[in-house]
Amino acid sequence: MILVDGQPGENVSARDRGLAYGDGVFRTLRAMRGQPVWWRDQAAKLAADCAALGLACPDASVLHDEVCRVAAGTDCVVKIIITRGQGSRGYALGAVRPVRMVMAAALPDYAGDHAPLEVRARWCALRLGQQPRLAGIKHLNRLENVLARAEWDDPAIREGLLCDQAGHVISGVMSNLFWVKADVLHTPDLSDCGVAGVARMRLLRAAVRHGWTTRIERHPAAAILDADEVMICNSLIGVRRIARIDATDLPQAGWRIRLEKALYEDLD
Amino acid sequence: MILVDGQPGENVSARDRGLAYGDGVFRTLRAMRGQPVWWRDQAAKLAADCAALGLACPDASVLHDEVCRVAAGTDCVVKIIITRGQGSRGYALGAVRPVRMVMAAALPDYAGDHAPLEVRARWCALRLGQQPRLAGIKHLNRLENVLARAEWDDPAIREGLLCDQAGHVISGVMSNLFWVKADVLHTPDLSDCGVAGVARMRLLRAAVRHGWTTRIERHPAAAILDADEVMICNSLIGVRRIARIDATDLPQAGWRIRLEKALYEDLD
Repeated sequence: MILVDGQPGENVSARDRGLAYGDGVFRTLRAMRGQPVWWRDQAAKLAADCAALGLACPDASVLHDEVCRVAAGTDCVVKIIITRGQGSRGYALGAVRPVRMVMAAALPDYAGDHAPLEVRARWCALRLGQQPRLAGIKHLNRLENVLARAEWDDPAIREGLLCDQAGHVISGVMSNLFWVKADVLHTPDLSDCGVAGVARMRLLRAAVRHGWTTRIERHPAAAILDADEVMICNSLIGVRRIARIDATDLPQAGWRIRLEKALYEDLD
Repeated sequence: MILVDGQPGENVSARDRGLAYGDGVFRTLRAMRGQPVWWRDQAAKLAADCAALGLACPDASVLHDEVCRVAAGTDCVVKIIITRGQGSRGYALGAVRPVRMVMAAALPDYAGDHAPLEVRARWCALRLGQQPRLAGIKHLNRLENVLARAEWDDPAIREGLLCDQAGHVISGVMSNLFWVKADVLHTPDLSDCGVAGVARMRLLRAAVRHGWTTRIERHPAAAILDADEVMICNSLIGVRRIARIDATDLPQAGWRIRLEKALYEDLD
């Protein structure tokens, strides 16, 4: 089921600026028994991303109701898209009214209760462009992710890791990246590229709560091959340990379970 | 009028990957008395852009027919959008069938027969990200152009000029850039960012035909302030001279009319 501006429907105008220019933002979140998980954080991030593009964000309570309607009591994935709306021709904004879409999909196997907690990853050849004006925002310009994901089709490989043009490791194609080295928790600086996801933000908040020493910095790709444990996270999978990158096996140090627990200490 | 896969319609699926990820390409072209201008070049560029994203491009003769149908004998702007189509959830491609949209709009005033041939421009604060994998392609990830165009609303300013992160001048928000200095024709190297438009390509071809010395290089923004004449071009406006950038008046040297004539030496 899809709700478009609150009405059941399958379509959006072919003149929508979300289609024409990727002029909008989105959220992918998990619903459990019909309720959105981490809703306060999801709604706050959506509002922040809208603000970053100068979009009027719909009221969180309206979105919450619509998420519950499409989730219909089930465990599923819910996607929210907010676009600038139907524009006149050309890049100039003119008078436009944002359009919101809320849609549900089945939880993918890799995010289900029986999915392996340790995964295989690979390095992607595509390197992310550096654009501080858009970095961190979950906007609709995602061709880099599409092209990176198209680099492999081996279902045994769950994630591709991305570096920027200068060779700094940034994230997974669909996840954020954490690693631990000598009891220090690391995650890449996303000032120039990447999406700053809600799971990452919750882990950084949890790190403060637990007193874990944390560094948000730029590192060359080699840094994670030298780590004590490497993990990916997002709103669907929680925290997974990367057991292998291409042909390199990676060690573990007991951090995955610690981070996963921290991630779910509250469900708000 | 809009044709979606050849059928009159106003909508596209809310699950289309063009909306979800900007996973597609487009063309904006001029029709005169219902016939697309520079069709051979437009169709070739669309095919090249599709190939660059691994999209199956619809047959050029099918597209030509649809362009003529929406243009309906008039002088207008026609936009063609090709998306990857309606996908399952997530970045992975899966089995998808491209969707094509062809739509007409009135020719904007600034591209009409009575529009001034000399225009005012401004420098944009937004700097383009460098992404060689996507540079040159007219894809649907155009948030940079949207944000740059949103920087001004003075209708007397027709174009914003864009630099890359390193400060090289690249293009206008909706046009390509040429300038002449000491009888050498210059246009920015678009290996790392920008859209390599059909008008630019036709001018480069014409420069060979006419024996004009031409350089495609990276230059700091200051280079164009020192030029003998600065011009922008695209498929709607042809060639316009920039008479002023912000508070700086720019000289002329008779090149605009020369380039405009060269651009229209054939209409194919």
